[in-house]
Amino acid sequence: MFPKEPDRNKSFRALINGIAADSVNIQDRGLHYGDGLFETIAIRNGQPLLWDQHMQRLCHGCERLRLPVPDVNLLRQEAESLCTGVTRAVLKILLTRGSGGRGYKAPVQPKPTRVVMRYSWPVYPEMNQTEGVAIRLCSTRLGHNTQLAGIKHLNRLEQVLARNEWDDPAIAEGLMLDHDGGVIEGTMSNVFIVENETLITPELSQCGVQGILRDHVLEIAEKLTIKCSVNTVSLAQVKSAQELFLTNSIIGVWPVRKFAEVNYTVGRITKNIIDKLES
Amino acid sequence: MFPKEPDRNKSFRALINGIAADSVNIQDRGLHYGDGLFETIAIRNGQPLLWDQHMQRLCHGCERLRLPVPDVNLLRQEAESLCTGVTRAVLKILLTRGSGGRGYKAPVQPKPTRVVMRYSWPVYPEMNQTEGVAIRLCSTRLGHNTQLAGIKHLNRLEQVLARNEWDDPAIAEGLMLDHDGGVIEGTMSNVFIVENETLITPELSQCGVQGILRDHVLEIAEKLTIKCSVNTVSLAQVKSAQELFLTNSIIGVWPVRKFAEVNYTVGRITKNIIDKLES
Repeated sequence: MFPKEPDRNKSFRALINGIAADSVNIQDRGLHYGDGLFETIAIRNGQPLLWDQHMQRLCHGCERLRLPVPDVNLLRQEAESLCTGVTRAVLKILLTRGSGGRGYKAPVQPKPTRVVMRYSWPVYPEMNQTEGVAIRLCSTRLGHNTQLAGIKHLNRLEQVLARNEWDDPAIAEGLMLDHDGGVIEGTMSNVFIVENETLITPELSQCGVQGILRDHVLEIAEKLTIKCSVNTVSLAQVKSAQELFLTNSIIGVWPVRKFAEVNYTVGRITKNIIDKLES
Repeated sequence: MFPKEPDRNKSFRALINGIAADSVNIQDRGLHYGDGLFETIAIRNGQPLLWDQHMQRLCHGCERLRLPVPDVNLLRQEAESLCTGVTRAVLKILLTRGSGGRGYKAPVQPKPTRVVMRYSWPVYPEMNQTEGVAIRLCSTRLGHNTQLAGIKHLNRLEQVLARNEWDDPAIAEGLMLDHDGGVIEGTMSNVFIVENETLITPELSQCGVQGILRDHVLEIAEKLTIKCSVNTVSLAQVKSAQELFLTNSIIGVWPVRKFAEVNYTVGRITKNIIDKLES
């Protein structure tokens, strides 16, 4: 009898610049300054979902940080090589400016570090999607920076601080405000409200991450002829919303059933979007 | 004849959790989120300068990020073991929350990664200190975050973006403003002005790094009975200042001789502080 093959859906694996490895150079600027970007991608039946959109955001982030744009075809090959035969997994791509001397000045010709990682698919309760989740308000605020807003860079201490404000496993996510008190996003998700039959998601020109699933949901809503708006969103608007839901590439759509003292039901627009997303 | 010993003042060396190594685990939260802190310390004749102050800031940063406080004696042993017989070097200590699964939530019992690195001493022109440096204004602004202000955390993209706004080696540093337009610091240094015989440095409750040499200069100034103030500083105040200088643990004090179109001379208070610092 052959030894049992390791469960390809469970074990962590990484390629660094195309080579199987489990560590990066201690002088990498990703570690020293968070000088880089990442993408978190859902894998289904060996294939990455919304790949083009993820690569577009990654390349846009490279332009913002003046990082050399990666070879997207190579990334795809590496992603597929890690995920062949895998039913469900999370693929994380991490791109840094590579190793540089001490100091913020970037090397004239940076040699980026390209990391492709496969993680096991997280197990969330089924009812998160069917009945919705309970969420809270975080006290950690998002600072403004137009150069960093929208992109998925490696400076994530605000999210780490916010996510560690609570331990209660019954609370699935925390909403974050910016310094003006506007609602921006969850610690790991984007947020949508329904108000007067209009789907609204916060605009992210000053801070926040422009989620791939956020944009995808906006496209779906348009196809469903749901009126959409990308705008400032206040806490009062969230509390009085007809519907409230969260999105990210891994969770998909989670309706919110409770935020602070307010209860919500899984509404028609939310349901339509979930149905369309899964079709 | 024995082979020539490698120049201990030049080669890079690192200890990771006490063991000589040159790479960190690919899942380290320092790399993924910038979830950690660092210190940059001057070494002279094998000994770290202002060690207690650096350790105080590091431990204060740990409290802010809720990181386990490191064993300071162990760090000192590791620092000395790297620097024995070294005339001048830069010691960099980097502390992260260690490896964690995917996601912002910190492990319940994190195992921090402790990195102690020795770099060669940078060669700056002698005249930087005697005649002063030319500096510029950066367009990259510092975002506000009271939880992260002051501490030397690993989220340094703002500094990376700011430092990469210019290539001209004749420009030694760039000043950074916050979102309210106040002067906060240089990309790698703190800033001081002299106005009406008073030494003023920007207050850092919203953003910026509370430099060890900044605090040391304030102490020196007090001993020299120079009137000091930690306050908001406007660009207009910098431009009309009698004296202007920069500080950090490696450069010490650099007077500024030119900022934008304004010329400055190395003034009496700046000179007194440099003299006292070197005595």
